[in-house]
Amino acid sequence: PLSPKSEKADLKKSDDVVPIDINIPDNYVQHTLKTQKELPPIGWHNWWKEISWVSTTVLTVTPTIAIVGAFYASLQWKTALFAVFYYFVTGLGITAGYHRLWSHRSYNASKPLEYFLAMAGTGAVQGSIKWWCRGHRAHHRYTDTDLDPYGAHHGLLWSHIGWMIVKPRRKPGVADVSDLSKSAVVKWQHRFYLPLIIGMGFGVPTLIPGLLWGDYLGGFVYAGAMRLCFVHHSTFCVNSLAHYLGETPFDDKHTPRDHMVTAFVTIGEGYHNFHHQFPMDYRNAIKWYQYDPTKWFISVCSMLGLASHLKVFPDNEVRKGQLTMQLKKLRRTQDNLLWPSDSNDLPIISWEEYLKESEKRPLIAVAGFIHDVASFMDEHPGGRHLLAKNIGRDATTAFFGGVYDHSNAAHNLLAMKRVAVLRGGQPHGTEELAIPPSQKLRIARY
Amino acid sequence: PLSPKSEKADLKKSDDVVPIDINIPDNYVQHTLKTQKELPPIGWHNWWKEISWVSTTVLTVTPTIAIVGAFYASLQWKTALFAVFYYFVTGLGITAGYHRLWSHRSYNASKPLEYFLAMAGTGAVQGSIKWWCRGHRAHHRYTDTDLDPYGAHHGLLWSHIGWMIVKPRRKPGVADVSDLSKSAVVKWQHRFYLPLIIGMGFGVPTLIPGLLWGDYLGGFVYAGAMRLCFVHHSTFCVNSLAHYLGETPFDDKHTPRDHMVTAFVTIGEGYHNFHHQFPMDYRNAIKWYQYDPTKWFISVCSMLGLASHLKVFPDNEVRKGQLTMQLKKLRRTQDNLLWPSDSNDLPIISWEEYLKESEKRPLIAVAGFIHDVASFMDEHPGGRHLLAKNIGRDATTAFFGGVYDHSNAAHNLLAMKRVAVLRGGQPHGTEELAIPPSQKLRIARY
Ligand code: HEM
Ligand code: HEM
Ligand SMILES: [Fe+2]
Ligand SMILES: [Fe+2]
Ligand SMILES: [Fe+2]
Ligand SMILES: [Fe+2]
Repeated sequence: PLSPKSEKADLKKSDDVVPIDINIPDNYVQHTLKTQKELPPIGWHNWWKEISWVSTTVLTVTPTIAIVGAFYASLQWKTALFAVFYYFVTGLGITAGYHRLWSHRSYNASKPLEYFLAMAGTGAVQGSIKWWCRGHRAHHRYTDTDLDPYGAHHGLLWSHIGWMIVKPRRKPGVADVSDLSKSAVVKWQHRFYLPLIIGMGFGVPTLIPGLLWGDYLGGFVYAGAMRLCFVHHSTFCVNSLAHYLGETPFDDKHTPRDHMVTAFVTIGEGYHNFHHQFPMDYRNAIKWYQYDPTKWFISVCSMLGLASHLKVFPDNEVRKGQLTMQLKKLRRTQDNLLWPSDSNDLPIISWEEYLKESEKRPLIAVAGFIHDVASFMDEHPGGRHLLAKNIGRDATTAFFGGVYDHSNAAHNLLAMKRVAVLRGGQPHGTEELAIPPSQKLRIARY
Repeated sequence: PLSPKSEKADLKKSDDVVPIDINIPDNYVQHTLKTQKELPPIGWHNWWKEISWVSTTVLTVTPTIAIVGAFYASLQWKTALFAVFYYFVTGLGITAGYHRLWSHRSYNASKPLEYFLAMAGTGAVQGSIKWWCRGHRAHHRYTDTDLDPYGAHHGLLWSHIGWMIVKPRRKPGVADVSDLSKSAVVKWQHRFYLPLIIGMGFGVPTLIPGLLWGDYLGGFVYAGAMRLCFVHHSTFCVNSLAHYLGETPFDDKHTPRDHMVTAFVTIGEGYHNFHHQFPMDYRNAIKWYQYDPTKWFISVCSMLGLASHLKVFPDNEVRKGQLTMQLKKLRRTQDNLLWPSDSNDLPIISWEEYLKESEKRPLIAVAGFIHDVASFMDEHPGGRHLLAKNIGRDATTAFFGGVYDHSNAAHNLLAMKRVAVLRGGQPHGTEELAIPPSQKLRIARY
């Protein structure tokens, strides 16, 4: 292991690709949010100047081709099957490649797998690996702030597609991708980006159905354009739907949420609450029955020796997060319930006072507390007479098993009927009995 | 309202039907269990002397008639439908009548309803109201002890049917039914028990199919004997299955359990964990989507003016019971997790010592604690360099939002890496930051 000293020296040595945030000040986020200027808001007078024409063209022309093309090309079942298959191939290029491998380094991929994922990902036509990951790392680093390039706090439409249609109002917060600048695959993709995009986005899906079963047009329309639309909006859903729909079983500080439906439309990226908590985990779903084909793909690659060092966040901490969220919910229940009076809030009376007072109203002493059972006389499952008999007496032994071993519910209810404490407190040995079962376990705040 | 004084006087006045347990000593249960003799255990040498011949005959002859009869009587669909209908009528006689009305007084029934339930319940051939309720009240009062006439601790077979086949080894614990001795309906049923049993158990189910569509034999076999078998074992399942199968969402002190399957075979008596906690509640299922036709029947009767004063246990206490059980489960999770070291368990070091030690290993100070991040350098999603940069420095501001607003999970993980406390403790204003989110809510025991 390197010593911390050489560690620091190291940082300066690798001069060409120094992490961009190496000299970041300790107050970077607040300072930037406060001092950096935003572009003016978009309105009717300026929207045409603020449109990002390249991505807008891609995102409107593709669906147009798909819809218009569908009127001309009849759908053959072979082509349909291939389109679905190619949807998964290029989708995995994004989810297993762009996202879990390059953005989050959640596992190591062998060269063949890296090239496969880079090509497949290019076929999803979502920009270069480096551009995509830079934005995505900023998204994680500044989630729900204005430094997040697709901040969910701007609404569903913005995080789904708006952020690509108009020029960003603000530069995304700094995020380091120097590791990617060093990567041979990433550089290779960058160099051949245009031919790769044409080949993987439209060439391959046109040629395979064309050469194999003569359906060039169908391949172009369905496996090319239509499939691409689905892949696009599938990825976009991770930024919109996954920050909107579902539960927050791991943390509710930010917008990301877990939902099966989102998982279904995003090849398993729908357990997004988990993912934002544990971004370096190669899994998004932790349960075997949850839908995460990207995880399954990575697992199979690892079995085949194509992937290694699959990162998993310590289970102990995952379960801790869940526990906290469950306690948070139960604490709301706890806060909304009525609880018995504490001995500090009750008058203290002597045994003689108790006897005198119980001539006037039905009072029963149990475990050092005096209870007014007027409202319960006719409700008592053990019968009115057993309560009546114990008025003005100490019913501790009878209540706790001597006559009937009352349930926790009975003990809880008893405590709600407290009206006073007996001077001298609980008789020795009954201190435990003075705490109703519902107060033996409580959620406390620290 | 009566004064407690007249209350006590009252108890003595009603001389003919004084509650049997009015003079019960405060240590009755333990004393009886210790001093009362049991009959000898049953073995090969004495079983024929210990059989309860009457109930054994009923419980073996009925299924014999049903099975043999099925070979002779072909099943008409009208008769089949009527048999199912009559199953529910006589079943409700037990569940809504014997059980929830007379055993538990969970609502008040008008005279017509009382007579209907008494007749229907007689058709289920399970003994008189008084005998049944006396046993059932003892079952609730001494659940899972030897004073329980069908104690589930003796096993599934015993609680299902064994306790009726052989003579009880011990007298059931005392249970008061003086309220029933006063009831006109109960006395009426007692008086005409034999004709009523023959009429309702076999007469009516034979005559209705016979007179209406000429199927006397089918009526006798299917609506009479076979239906009776099902009603018998349906009721028996409340004592066996309901004390064996399912969850304990309200209390786990005793054997009763909640299960949908038990509910289906017992006309809604399967939420037995709830029932034993809140026996005077006219409901067994509290959620609308749970199967409790007995509750629905009572509700409808109440809407028709046939029933009133439907008892409901305070919702506050019901939810308290659930909360406790959920906390109990979560506490097991909490106990099985690893938690960070407390400042009391860590060495206290000075800033200078920290600096010196961090030359040798990667130490980072955050919120007054020193953390060894050696194992995390290459795992850090923010990159190795951001950790390296902060070795030997105070990273509190950077960690808590200055560079990155870490998630709860990150904070929890950080706390697990504590190795020392800085002398002087947390700098003013960061005390809150020293508690990881997972420790802000904890289940405490009192
Ligand atoms: C004053 C406070 C009391 C309260 C709030 C109370 C409450 C209850 C409740 C809720 C039940 C039914 C649920 C369960 O099984 O635990 C019950 C049953 C019973 N209680 Fe009490 N009780 C009180 C006092 C007593 C006393 C002093 C006696 C005896 C001297 C007694 C004797 C019984 C018996 C015998 C039953 C069983 C009835 C049955 O299940 O058939 N109770 N009580
Ligand atoms: C020494 C203890 C530290 C631990 C245990 C830790 C842990 C983590 C964890 C678990 C994450 C990913 C999950 C999340 O979003 O919170 C993360 C992300 C990050 N951490 Fe740390 N961190 C530490 C120190 C630091 C320091 C001192 C800095 C900055 C100077 C830093 C900067 C970052 C950044 C920028 C990310 C975001 C990466 C991304 O999502 O792309 N961390 N850290
Ligand atoms: Fe996200
Ligand atoms: Fe991500
Ligand atoms: Fe029971
Ligand atoms: Fe019951």
